[in-house]
Amino acid sequence: MAQRIDFQTDPSRYRHWRVEYDGEIANLYMDVDENGGLFDGYQLKLNSYDLGVDIELADVVQRMRFEHPEVKVVIMQSGKEKVFCSGANIRMLAGAAHAHKVNFCKFTNETRNTFEAAEADSGQKYICAVKGACAGGGYELALACNYIMLTDDSSSSVALPEVPLLAVLPGTGGLTRVTDKRKVRRDRADIFCSIEEGIKGKRARDWNLVDEVIPNAKFDDTVQERAKEFVAASGKASGLKGVELTPIDRTFGDDGSVTYSLVEVTLDRDAGKATILIKGPDGDAPADMAAMQAEGASTYMLRLARELDDAILHLRLNERQLGLMVFTTQGDPEKVLAHEAVLLADKDNWLANEILAYWKRVLKRVDMTSRSLVALVEHGSCYAGVLAELLWSVDRSYMMEGEFDGDNRPLATVTLSESNFGTFPMSNDLTRLQTRFLGTPEDVVALKDRIGEPMEAEAADEAGLVTMILDDIDWDDEVRIFLEERASFSPDAMTGMEANLRFAGPETMETRIFGRLTAWQNWIFQRPNAVGEDGALRRYGTGKRGDYNMERV
Amino acid sequence: MAQRIDFQTDPSRYRHWRVEYDGEIANLYMDVDENGGLFDGYQLKLNSYDLGVDIELADVVQRMRFEHPEVKVVIMQSGKEKVFCSGANIRMLAGAAHAHKVNFCKFTNETRNTFEAAEADSGQKYICAVKGACAGGGYELALACNYIMLTDDSSSSVALPEVPLLAVLPGTGGLTRVTDKRKVRRDRADIFCSIEEGIKGKRARDWNLVDEVIPNAKFDDTVQERAKEFVAASGKASGLKGVELTPIDRTFGDDGSVTYSLVEVTLDRDAGKATILIKGPDGDAPADMAAMQAEGASTYMLRLARELDDAILHLRLNERQLGLMVFTTQGDPEKVLAHEAVLLADKDNWLANEILAYWKRVLKRVDMTSRSLVALVEHGSCYAGVLAELLWSVDRSYMMEGEFDGDNRPLATVTLSESNFGTFPMSNDLTRLQTRFLGTPEDVVALKDRIGEPMEAEAADEAGLVTMILDDIDWDDEVRIFLEERASFSPDAMTGMEANLRFAGPETMETRIFGRLTAWQNWIFQRPNAVGEDGALRRYGTGKRGDYNMERV
Repeated sequence: MAQRIDFQTDPSRYRHWRVEYDGEIANLYMDVDENGGLFDGYQLKLNSYDLGVDIELADVVQRMRFEHPEVKVVIMQSGKEKVFCSGANIRMLAGAAHAHKVNFCKFTNETRNTFEAAEADSGQKYICAVKGACAGGGYELALACNYIMLTDDSSSSVALPEVPLLAVLPGTGGLTRVTDKRKVRRDRADIFCSIEEGIKGKRARDWNLVDEVIPNAKFDDTVQERAKEFVAASGKASGLKGVELTPIDRTFGDDGSVTYSLVEVTLDRDAGKATILIKGPDGDAPADMAAMQAEGASTYMLRLARELDDAILHLRLNERQLGLMVFTTQGDPEKVLAHEAVLLADKDNWLANEILAYWKRVLKRVDMTSRSLVALVEHGSCYAGVLAELLWSVDRSYMMEGEFDGDNRPLATVTLSESNFGTFPMSNDLTRLQTRFLGTPEDVVALKDRIGEPMEAEAADEAGLVTMILDDIDWDDEVRIFLEERASFSPDAMTGMEANLRFAGPETMETRIFGRLTAWQNWIFQRPNAVGEDGALRRYGTGKRGDYNMERV
Repeated sequence: MAQRIDFQTDPSRYRHWRVEYDGEIANLYMDVDENGGLFDGYQLKLNSYDLGVDIELADVVQRMRFEHPEVKVVIMQSGKEKVFCSGANIRMLAGAAHAHKVNFCKFTNETRNTFEAAEADSGQKYICAVKGACAGGGYELALACNYIMLTDDSSSSVALPEVPLLAVLPGTGGLTRVTDKRKVRRDRADIFCSIEEGIKGKRARDWNLVDEVIPNAKFDDTVQERAKEFVAASGKASGLKGVELTPIDRTFGDDGSVTYSLVEVTLDRDAGKATILIKGPDGDAPADMAAMQAEGASTYMLRLARELDDAILHLRLNERQLGLMVFTTQGDPEKVLAHEAVLLADKDNWLANEILAYWKRVLKRVDMTSRSLVALVEHGSCYAGVLAELLWSVDRSYMMEGEFDGDNRPLATVTLSESNFGTFPMSNDLTRLQTRFLGTPEDVVALKDRIGEPMEAEAADEAGLVTMILDDIDWDDEVRIFLEERASFSPDAMTGMEANLRFAGPETMETRIFGRLTAWQNWIFQRPNAVGEDGALRRYGTGKRGDYNMERV
């Protein structure tokens, strides 16, 4: 799998999805091109999906919010006759390396979360109209929608057959959403997850696996009717005009570097390290949201979010040997705050809301990245407001203290803004500052008084905002030694440690999916009973069941 | 590891721990016998531990509560000069099968939780007096105590060196208690977990890794002084006389069966199944708690808890090929309720409190058991009050409906008691009924009105208390088919599925330890970077570090 996976696409390139816009309703059709797999060796039969299908879906959801703010209800449905979606492609899974499987699941999970976020953050509701078999990842797609309608015919059912059929879990949120979103009684969930053929009709409704079961003859009409009802009940503003997400400005270098307009990714393969340089604004902040909307996708806050998001995804999937991600910023912190302030001053504006909500998702993506994350707060940097969040998203931060010989850049500072106190909650529903100061919540309260103050190293250290401050004498050696040491540790131990240390405090459905469910799935993805020569995944389609070692752990 | 692991012990057999009772203070010394390992092939140097050491510790904690209710403060300390405890024995871990590692960690985790439970449920406070190196599982022992005192000398420190040294996690609650109990700032936790040599002195206090750092010369006196202060501040009743935990009545059969006075374990190895028959009371309930105390360890409610606990542990560790645990009961439900009622009527009585709290732990042990759990509610059964909890601890329950040909036993019933509404919370801090009816909390409220009503099959089914009811025609086939099917599934997929479905709703430190932390640890315990030929665990002690594949997942 040496080919580079590209997370950028647009409707003109879609092979698997299409959207028909009907005013405030969007009909979203999954119609997977069997021969459009991202890799060779499998066909995407029966509306099964691979990462390529999901990249398109993520693009659909993203564009729905930015380009089609007029849409209030999205109806997810199948473009094929007899099948809704049969889930992740098994041959793809059986042939994929462990690391690809894990990253594939993570990305699909993140994309599923965006359906729920679309309603929670923007009032754009996803409903799922299930006709035909809806199995495994197919039902997980439905579960991530906020209203599930099932037709009542002889072949339409919902199912999570992973456990009996494949000896793996419904790992794209399936188990968690069944218990915690649909709140299905636990023994019923147990039965449901053990039945290959799934559950249909009245029982699916009785067990709350779907919200509505509709006679087949009335299904299509009822779906449209329900969509109209949801539109009528929606609190989302009407008549909004979108912003086109034009292609991002991106160049790949032969050495693996990636240059965007505001982000530069450079690699040091020997050191196992990728450095992500984020640049401050290259222009003045627009006067207001109208001016920002006129700037469209080129406006700093949106452009940077898109570039950073792409850089993270690129490194996750395409540069798996690099265990360290080092964030640096360079630019004018005042300007960052000025751009951000336009959004914060008019949060009810739909585009301001969308850009801030997108930053929330991008920062969650950083939190969830299975690499050791480090921020360097160097002179000339611009960790202010939204960019300061990176300091508490990473595992550690190092900050320059005092003058450095021959360095004429402005002294390193950290500047808080209002946005650090609630605009970008983590997946545990706390802010990064609340999570950081879980034991001393009074520190968060005290920090509110320091909004707008550019804190130099000593002040930032005293306030607990950075891990360590270092002067000119120590900086190079200390940072180098830390990075070298970190790069020498077992990447698996790092993954496990970081997954545990990053998410203190309360859990949510989201943290449970990425913590508990994903961890167990990854464990199973290592077990011979699933992935060994005679395991269920390998034997799938041969007519033989997996040959299991029955020892329990 | 074919030898049978025995979870029963008593002070006369201890090799690794000793307790000196000093009125309301107990001095608990860890003084591991190097040559007292449970298995061959390793020495328990530097106060390192294996499962055998932990079985003794669990016995100490249990006896402290039942035999020594006069104790208000337990001081955990080392009986060796230079070391507090160096954690789980690495050679043991390196040589152990995956399933043993996982079960070892689970049992040690459960034992750690009992320190916290001792204070929460009985006001018996564990403080930890750390002199000498306190590393890995040693510090995890300390973390499970509720007050940590560290001496300030050149060699005493606390450390979690698992990640840098062994490429595994501090998996006995370490990472979770650092972030969620001690609430250590996340980047500091990251540093702490990356430093082999650990942290000592003032910094350990500043980072809240310990509660107090004391000059070495004053250490012993200060520890005793602090213990006396805690005794003085304790709300625990004084002058209580304990109950001796006499040996349980247990016989092993050649076929693997185990017969206790109230529990019978029978095995069907071909079917991968262990059946646990629980018998109702063999005598009348004592008149009151004074009479129950006079019965001592032989009183029904205590005797049954001890026998069931032992049976579960025995099956977990010694019968790992049996993936199914089937619970049945036989006896008079009224008598079960009568015995339970003596406890519930006098909950403030120390022994009533202890027995109920012990049942809470036993039921949590059932919840946490990595086997498919089934309850059969047959005619003549006694699922009432505390025993009814089993119905909602298991994955599924099947209940007999109506008369069965030739079966003269009383019709199967389920009877709720007051205890089902708060006495035995799960590790998620909800009752089993609350967890079961997460989506319909009003059902729990309605059930309160039915306390004491023996519900036959139809009523129990309508109330949602059992999974399925079956009449004489269907019972044998349906139950057999289910058990056969279940036994045919991948045990790993079952483990993962059950770990996710059993714990809907909120998370607590306990569920995070068993869910998130354990799952990641188990994943790492499969990874070549830890357990492969050149992995860190195997190479430990050779002077060579692990040779890692640096790919991140």
